[in-house]
Amino acid sequence: MGLDLALPVGELTRVLVDVPSVSGDEGTLATAVEEALRSLGGLEILRDGDAVLARTGHGLPARVLLAGHLDTVPVADNLPARLDGSRLYGCGTSDMKAGVAVMLRLAALLGTPASGSAPAPESRPGPVSGAGAGARHDVTWVFYDNEEVAAARNGLRRLAERHRDWLQADLAILMEPTSGEIEAGCQGTLRVVATVPGRRAHSARSWLGENAIHQAGELLTRLARYRPRSVTLDGCTYREGLSAVRIDGGVAGNVIPDSCRVTVNFRFAPDRDPKAALAHVAEVLDGYDLVLDDSAGGAPPGLSAPAAAAFVAATGRAPVAKYGWTDVARFAELGIPALNYGPGDPNLAHTRDEYVEVAVIEETERVLGSYLVGRGTP
Amino acid sequence: MGLDLALPVGELTRVLVDVPSVSGDEGTLATAVEEALRSLGGLEILRDGDAVLARTGHGLPARVLLAGHLDTVPVADNLPARLDGSRLYGCGTSDMKAGVAVMLRLAALLGTPASGSAPAPESRPGPVSGAGAGARHDVTWVFYDNEEVAAARNGLRRLAERHRDWLQADLAILMEPTSGEIEAGCQGTLRVVATVPGRRAHSARSWLGENAIHQAGELLTRLARYRPRSVTLDGCTYREGLSAVRIDGGVAGNVIPDSCRVTVNFRFAPDRDPKAALAHVAEVLDGYDLVLDDSAGGAPPGLSAPAAAAFVAATGRAPVAKYGWTDVARFAELGIPALNYGPGDPNLAHTRDEYVEVAVIEETERVLGSYLVGRGTP
Repeated sequence: MGLDLALPVGELTRVLVDVPSVSGDEGTLATAVEEALRSLGGLEILRDGDAVLARTGHGLPARVLLAGHLDTVPVADNLPARLDGSRLYGCGTSDMKAGVAVMLRLAALLGTPASGSAPAPESRPGPVSGAGAGARHDVTWVFYDNEEVAAARNGLRRLAERHRDWLQADLAILMEPTSGEIEAGCQGTLRVVATVPGRRAHSARSWLGENAIHQAGELLTRLARYRPRSVTLDGCTYREGLSAVRIDGGVAGNVIPDSCRVTVNFRFAPDRDPKAALAHVAEVLDGYDLVLDDSAGGAPPGLSAPAAAAFVAATGRAPVAKYGWTDVARFAELGIPALNYGPGDPNLAHTRDEYVEVAVIEETERVLGSYLVGRGTP
Repeated sequence: MGLDLALPVGELTRVLVDVPSVSGDEGTLATAVEEALRSLGGLEILRDGDAVLARTGHGLPARVLLAGHLDTVPVADNLPARLDGSRLYGCGTSDMKAGVAVMLRLAALLGTPASGSAPAPESRPGPVSGAGAGARHDVTWVFYDNEEVAAARNGLRRLAERHRDWLQADLAILMEPTSGEIEAGCQGTLRVVATVPGRRAHSARSWLGENAIHQAGELLTRLARYRPRSVTLDGCTYREGLSAVRIDGGVAGNVIPDSCRVTVNFRFAPDRDPKAALAHVAEVLDGYDLVLDDSAGGAPPGLSAPAAAAFVAATGRAPVAKYGWTDVARFAELGIPALNYGPGDPNLAHTRDEYVEVAVIEETERVLGSYLVGRGTP
């Protein structure tokens, strides 16, 4: 199939949504993206598995990386896409083919050299026309696979291992759904399992046992009384949270339980690294046996980086902290300032009624286009 | 198969153990018991499903009922029975074919009329000989099915519905394993499920939710601080207990849970009925949404009944309270004083290494024989 990058961004989104690309099955879409990028000319292209990367090489002072995943969660009887008034409905509309469509439109805007064998940008309709020559930043596009599944399969993780050089940038913009807001950095997250011990006995002789579930009450009360920090970094306030997310205990209806397990999730501001975060949890839950289940560092907002500051100025919006963990943390790990900025609505992601407002896709394209080609703030 | 009731009680136990009778499959053993009882003569016999009942009708002032179940838990690679020194190993040895053997030996002792067509007791070997004529009480034997499974299938429950008259007695002795101690009455038991509500949210924005697991901490702390009563009835101390036996809550590793369920088991002294017990639990757990899961009343010790007092005197042992719930409660419900007294060891019941001390079976036979035929306390 061929992707027509001259389509208005809402229509291009619709075309992308109608190519199913559930995690692990992104091949058809990745190939279509690769071919569309190659047809532009003027871009260096890399294909790695079902990830596709492209970059300009104008030798400009700063490089901006745009990243978005091609995969979606499983289709929930919500394909093909359906336009209803101002909203485009369907699997992956918000998370995040609207963002992918914006990335592709920007490639068409920036990828074509001022002179060359590819069709001149002037021949293209819509807001893309005539912008190719004014690039203010070099740009790298990263379309990747398997974001919606286990971290071990994540395409961006694989690229960081195999093609570290391709990810080098002064600012990374991850086009996860933010409803067109700038969500800076992200919180870190870790999970520990606290095991509260006891001693079994028949419940008719409860005094011969030690009830692990009763003992867990003290731990839960500590969590209920915990007052999380709020940390402001680069003007963005990261509010932490320490929450039991699972509890289970019990042997049988007539047995005093000898074990109760509580899974605790700590969402921490990016001024702590995972090691410091774990030490804090261990201090709060002092006296309990803790086993680390998983952890992932956050990402500082990085708004003081010049490229980031220029982007914030271009949008004319005040950035806020990102609360959920996103792949921006992978860029932070590589020392690259990273933001979340995308047209989708995060509250609609993964729902059966997922949709995106076409006007927000258009606004995102306009804002990023202005920023990248240097026509001043909109 | 034929059961030889002239065998020493330890050997008879072994024969009974070697007839598998897992709950629902008691037919072969029930028929053998029925035939052995019929062969004695002088007993009125009733067969109901796989329950077998027998009774004397001498018109004596008091009637003592001996009850025991024929079924066992599933065989755990522990058949046939194996004698190792003083211990007889095998499925059902303690729970409770040793008790069934004692019951059958006592039937042989008491069932044969002083004169009649059946063989005279004098022709029988061992301690049974010559005892038949001295009966001090009329006796009813209840061998029943399906004690080890759900209450709805319980044979004694069925008999209480269909043959209430057969269960009439001045004292019921349930031959569940007590290691030869008198365990009087039993505690009642009830289970409630307390549901603690909350409100879901992403754990990265925990302040938007209400954590049901955290809220459960207060409930668990109440249970941990609860000080159960001890109630002394007829010299037996019933110690109550209020225990969480199960807890579960949690939606996913990144979700603030909106529900946490705690199953609470109350073991209560027999001076409370189930309704009063539930009211007490509701008072302790005031403010929580409770649903009654199941309940069963206890049984008062009933030691002031003359037949019970005489039995206690005959054993020369101080009775203690029974903590676990047993079928004595079914007799209590019919207004019949009931005790637990049997040769098995309750701590070995349902274990793979189940065994019974042959000396305790013999002692139990001797004590009950003396009590029933009035040869004075041993």
